[in-house]
Amino acid sequence: MTFMEMLKNAWKINNSLVCVGLDPDLKKMPDCVKNEKYPIFAFNKAIIDATKDAVCSYKPQAAMYAGMNADEELGMTIDYIHEVAPAVPVILDAKRADIGNTTAMYAKEAFERYNADAITVNPYMGMDALKPFLDRADKGVIVLCRTSNGGAKEVQELRLESGEMLYQRIAKLISHDWNYNGNTMLVAGATFPEELGEIRKIVGDTPLLVPGIGAQGGDLAGVLKNGLTADKTGLVINSSRGIIYASNGTDFAEAAGKAAQELKDQINALR
Amino acid sequence: MTFMEMLKNAWKINNSLVCVGLDPDLKKMPDCVKNEKYPIFAFNKAIIDATKDAVCSYKPQAAMYAGMNADEELGMTIDYIHEVAPAVPVILDAKRADIGNTTAMYAKEAFERYNADAITVNPYMGMDALKPFLDRADKGVIVLCRTSNGGAKEVQELRLESGEMLYQRIAKLISHDWNYNGNTMLVAGATFPEELGEIRKIVGDTPLLVPGIGAQGGDLAGVLKNGLTADKTGLVINSSRGIIYASNGTDFAEAAGKAAQELKDQINALR
Repeated sequence: MTFMEMLKNAWKINNSLVCVGLDPDLKKMPDCVKNEKYPIFAFNKAIIDATKDAVCSYKPQAAMYAGMNADEELGMTIDYIHEVAPAVPVILDAKRADIGNTTAMYAKEAFERYNADAITVNPYMGMDALKPFLDRADKGVIVLCRTSNGGAKEVQELRLESGEMLYQRIAKLISHDWNYNGNTMLVAGATFPEELGEIRKIVGDTPLLVPGIGAQGGDLAGVLKNGLTADKTGLVINSSRGIIYASNGTDFAEAAGKAAQELKDQINALR
Repeated sequence: MTFMEMLKNAWKINNSLVCVGLDPDLKKMPDCVKNEKYPIFAFNKAIIDATKDAVCSYKPQAAMYAGMNADEELGMTIDYIHEVAPAVPVILDAKRADIGNTTAMYAKEAFERYNADAITVNPYMGMDALKPFLDRADKGVIVLCRTSNGGAKEVQELRLESGEMLYQRIAKLISHDWNYNGNTMLVAGATFPEELGEIRKIVGDTPLLVPGIGAQGGDLAGVLKNGLTADKTGLVINSSRGIIYASNGTDFAEAAGKAAQELKDQINALR
C-alpha cells in the first residue's frame, strides 16, 4: 500500500484526522521513564499504545532525536508503530532538501534506515532537489508551503510580480508540476487559517499537514472551515505537546490517550 | 575564536580559498579502506592529513553520514580535524530550518553533538526559524541563497513585485536583518557566476560559500571575477568529488592532496 492509500485508509478506520507528534523532550518527560535503558523509546511506546486507535498518523520530529543522540530510539519508535499499528503511516518530520545526489542519501535515511512512510521537505531549492523523494511513488512527500511560525511571512508572503504571494506559487508548483506521482502533500500552519484556505483553493484535494494546534495557538475551527475537502477529510492535524505532555505523572500515557481522543472528537464535531 | 575569525585566519595562514567537501561514498572509496573497522573515518583521516595545509575549511555533508548510518564516523571526522588542523573551521552541510524550539535541537546537534564551527541552513521559513543558529555569535550560519543545482531558478529566480528576484531579496535579508551577530555567510553556486556577482553587490564583504566547482561544472574564473572582495578573499570555494576521489587506488590520499594544492594554485593565480 502506498503512503497515500495508507493515509486515506487510516482516516477511515480510525475516523480521525489527528496526527500525534512524537517530539521527545527529557525535561518534560515523566520521571517514571527516565530510568529505563531507552527512556525515549519507553515514553513513545506508552504514548503509541494509548493513542493508536485515535490517530491517522504519527510524526516523529527528527531534530529532537538528532539533538539528543537518540537515532537508535527513533528507529525503534518507527519499527514499533509499524508492528502495533500497521495501518497508521509514519511521517518523518525532517524538512530536508539538497542537490539531487545528496537528497538521494536523505531519501535513504528516511525510507531505508528509518522505514518512514513519508517525509517533510523544503521547497527553496526547486523540484530537482526533491526528485529522489518525489520519484518514490510509494512514499509521501510533504512540502513546506505556509509554515506555522510567526516569522514565516517574511519570506513566504513576499509578493510576486504576478500578484501572487510566494507560498501561493509554491502551492501551485507542489500540487501540479511536482505531483507527477500523486504523492505530495503540503504543510499549512493552523496559525494562519486564511492562508490555509487560499492553499486549499489552489491544490484541490491534495492533503494538508497542519501543525500549530495547541501550544502554538492555532485556530482549529478555522482550519476545518477552510481546509476540509468535499468528503470531509484532506487534513492531517498535528498536535505534539498538547497530547504527549498532557500529564507528566505516572498517568502520562493514559492522559495522552484521553487528549488524543478529545482532539479527535473535537475535530469530528466540527466536520 | 569565532568561526568568522577562524575563517579569516585560515584564508591567511594557508593562503587558500579552498574548502574540501567530505562526502563519503562507499562505491567510490578505494578498496584499501573498506576493511577498516571505520572505513569512512579511515578515508577521511587520510584525506585530511593530505590536504590540511591547502584548505581554509572542511565541509562534511550530513546526508552522506545519515544515509549510511555513520553518525559516529561523522563525529570522529570532525574531532580529528579539530585535533590535527585546529586552525581550520568545519562547516556541517545540513541545510536545516524548523520552528524555533525545534531548530534549537538542530543547533544542539551541529554545535554540541558534532562540535561543528558552522552550519548551512535554509531561509524559506524566515528569520525566527533560524534564530537558535543566528544567536550563536561564535558559530557561522551559512544560508542558502542561489544554489548550484540546475533547477534552483524555479523558486530562487521568481520575480518579486519590487522587481528583484527572490534570491536577491534573500541576500538582503541575510546580510542585513539576519546578520545581527556578524556571523552569516551565503551559499552562491559556482554554476551561476552572474547571479553570484549580483549577490556580491548586495552583501558587501559577507563571505560566500561556493559549491559547484568540479563535477557540477562551475565556472571558477567567473566566480573569482565576480565574487572576490577588495582584499581578494571573501570566498570559500568547495570541491568534493574532484578532490577526494582524484584516485581510487592506494594513492588516493596523495592524489587528493595534489588535487587540493592544484585547485588552491589555480585560484591563487586568478586572484
